Amino acid sequence: MAKDDKKAPKKAKPKKTLAELEERAAKLRKRLARTESKIAVSKGLVPGQSPLATKFPSLPEVAGVRFASAAAGVKYEDRLDVMLAEVAEGSAIAGVFTKSATRSAPVDWCKAKLAEMKKGAPRGPLAIVVNSGNANAFTGDNGMKGVAATAKAAAKAVGGAQRGVFISSTGVIGEALPADKITDKLAEMKDMLAPGDLPLAAEAIMTTDTFPKGAGKTVDLDGVTVNIAGIAKGSGMIAPDMATMLGYVFTDAPVSRALLQSMLSEGTKTSFNAATVDSDTSTSDTVLVAATGKAGGKNISSRRDPRTEVFEAALNEVLQDLAKQIVRDGEGATKFVTVKVTGAKTDASAAVIARAIANSPLVKTAIAGEDPNWGRVVMAVGKSGQPANRDKLSIHFGDILVADKGWVADSYTEEAGAEYMQGKEIKIIADLGIANGAAEVWTCDLTHGYITINSDYRS
Amino acid sequence: MAKDDKKAPKKAKPKKTLAELEERAAKLRKRLARTESKIAVSKGLVPGQSPLATKFPSLPEVAGVRFASAAAGVKYEDRLDVMLAEVAEGSAIAGVFTKSATRSAPVDWCKAKLAEMKKGAPRGPLAIVVNSGNANAFTGDNGMKGVAATAKAAAKAVGGAQRGVFISSTGVIGEALPADKITDKLAEMKDMLAPGDLPLAAEAIMTTDTFPKGAGKTVDLDGVTVNIAGIAKGSGMIAPDMATMLGYVFTDAPVSRALLQSMLSEGTKTSFNAATVDSDTSTSDTVLVAATGKAGGKNISSRRDPRTEVFEAALNEVLQDLAKQIVRDGEGATKFVTVKVTGAKTDASAAVIARAIANSPLVKTAIAGEDPNWGRVVMAVGKSGQPANRDKLSIHFGDILVADKGWVADSYTEEAGAEYMQGKEIKIIADLGIANGAAEVWTCDLTHGYITINSDYRS
Repeated sequence: MAKDDKKAPKKAKPKKTLAELEERAAKLRKRLARTESKIAVSKGLVPGQSPLATKFPSLPEVAGVRFASAAAGVKYEDRLDVMLAEVAEGSAIAGVFTKSATRSAPVDWCKAKLAEMKKGAPRGPLAIVVNSGNANAFTGDNGMKGVAATAKAAAKAVGGAQRGVFISSTGVIGEALPADKITDKLAEMKDMLAPGDLPLAAEAIMTTDTFPKGAGKTVDLDGVTVNIAGIAKGSGMIAPDMATMLGYVFTDAPVSRALLQSMLSEGTKTSFNAATVDSDTSTSDTVLVAATGKAGGKNISSRRDPRTEVFEAALNEVLQDLAKQIVRDGEGATKFVTVKVTGAKTDASAAVIARAIANSPLVKTAIAGEDPNWGRVVMAVGKSGQPANRDKLSIHFGDILVADKGWVADSYTEEAGAEYMQGKEIKIIADLGIANGAAEVWTCDLTHGYITINSDYRS
Repeated sequence: MAKDDKKAPKKAKPKKTLAELEERAAKLRKRLARTESKIAVSKGLVPGQSPLATKFPSLPEVAGVRFASAAAGVKYEDRLDVMLAEVAEGSAIAGVFTKSATRSAPVDWCKAKLAEMKKGAPRGPLAIVVNSGNANAFTGDNGMKGVAATAKAAAKAVGGAQRGVFISSTGVIGEALPADKITDKLAEMKDMLAPGDLPLAAEAIMTTDTFPKGAGKTVDLDGVTVNIAGIAKGSGMIAPDMATMLGYVFTDAPVSRALLQSMLSEGTKTSFNAATVDSDTSTSDTVLVAATGKAGGKNISSRRDPRTEVFEAALNEVLQDLAKQIVRDGEGATKFVTVKVTGAKTDASAAVIARAIANSPLVKTAIAGEDPNWGRVVMAVGKSGQPANRDKLSIHFGDILVADKGWVADSYTEEAGAEYMQGKEIKIIADLGIANGAAEVWTCDLTHGYITINSDYRS
């Protein structure tokens, strides 16, 4: 081919090979990651921690509960990965679990032991054992063997019965649980048990979490001071169908088993089940609540007891606080999003619509891009399959009326919407305008961070 | 603070400000995008086009149908954005539509006109008008006004009745349709109508699509050669609930209206409804099939007619080909994924499980990362809420048995799984082992590309 004489051949850059280009892309990705990490620090954030992270609160001490946390090397060395809670003899315990058909062996165990509790509590203290690093899920016969070994060791550590031991495992699915490491450690942990060691316990149950999660509350029940303190974990594989992560709440209130279970089952609906990060449900989700009664006072066993309402409100506050912290740690999250649906045909219908909005990848990516794309909210309402009337639907972003009467609101400006979307806390309100059903769910945005975290090869 | 004397102060780099860091990150992102684009070219791909794109096929000419495509400037200048199809008088027409409660005015119109067809076809040719750039959805009263104006102009252009005009609009939700631009253009398009102009029509209906989609088939029905040719669009907001995108299929076979509708309704289940990109359902989804009968031969109106089976198989092939092309153009897609579920309680149950796997963000990001993370497939089966037995479930990646009897298969190696995942076409097979229900769906991986495309600000 003819060449332009003025261009000396030496000036022509040789074309890079595919390998060279891919090497270059890898380098640029690393530099970008470093720069983004510096930006986080410059914004006053802890590198690697969710920008929505909250500080671990100061929690009240719950009489009758002691904790120990240790590094058993389940998956990684030198990090806390086992927690043991000893719960005083005679305590009431309640639980909610994943509805997954492929749930883990520990979940099967807990459900069975909880059912046995109805016939009477065992002698000695109860124990809750949680390990991170390995979910002991889909591990065949191995699963229940690991659970049985753990139960035996934990019962021995607290001096209780095996049927009083509750176990959770969280981490990789499908790898055999190194139960020996956990049982060896439990023998040592016996002497480490101490009241109030919840911050370490919250760390021990973390997997991809970027901050430990805790919440507490103190209330007065007819002159008796009652404490509630809880911890939780979860940042991915979170969806609103039963307990969708791990949560452990302790109280010294004197609540009966049946009432405690009723409160937890109800309270989960507006707390853990209102949280959704990626619509995926774990095989291990578990929330347990234990009530020791050590605060004193007469036993609370009926909804007619005026103390029930006060206690339940406080318990719900703790459950909701924990659930919101889990959303704040959603993988790659940069915005905390509250989706409120009102005016729906029923509360159940409102919940379905709220989840359709909160789980829509198009809504979540729009929020990540700070795009007030209300058309995607309309789409999500439509796809929910619930009764809706296009022309009665209205949408608010925070206090801003965005759309009503089947179209964009006269008063709405794109500038106002865009400015609102720059905040870290986003509220989307969809009013269906057809009846009084309402629901609220919490979610986060869907970002490059989520893809990076979840597309990384496991090794 | 005390300083180490050996470190000269002049060596200390001044800390970059937040603004400088963000500028740097922006530059790095641009350089990375350029490098990634070069990598695509080096791999022989068209820049900006899906790496899974297919070439537009050579399509058979369907007797009795003419096409025109034009640039009306609905949203952008100088790109094809309106297509008009003229379908010969006396043709049968069938349709399936989005089930969205917030569906667009054009969808409402089409459903009404299709219902009127049952009472008898109008005089003169039928017309199909599709515009891209604006969905005419959630635009209040304006919506139906735009539809009515378009119907009037299209009826005039083809010399038919308004009730024989079918309209689709696709693009941004919530902005008023500039109907004038479309009606002005339709008057001109009358003289542009030509048989076989499907490639341009396929381009005119594109929005975020990166390649035009077409499929065709020629079959012999008792000595009569019959042609089928169709086009489709769709790359995001795709989910398996009714027609999940736009599709228009034409044939010169002599099929009756009722039978054509029955075939389309059935065929959609295993084609367009088997495609899912992001679980989101559009407000505008429409698939229309028109049969002109111009190929000749006796009218086909019964399933007992032996020609029905031959024709239906060919039609289904075209529908499936189009649906798969839509998945291949999934926003950010780098892998085409077939999810097959067998051994489920019923076909319906298998379909729910297949979609739970195909829509799981955790499964889709694992595939993007070429991670043979079968634990996430187990999780997705579990969360589907369908009958399943952990210990009877088996999972294959392609021909590789990954997991069975409740655990990883003895023969499975992580190396084999990882190598398989590097392919562009991934097949995940989950056998529930409890009965004979089966289903297949198609999806793609969830990548940084999806986030980038969908978190960009609209302007």
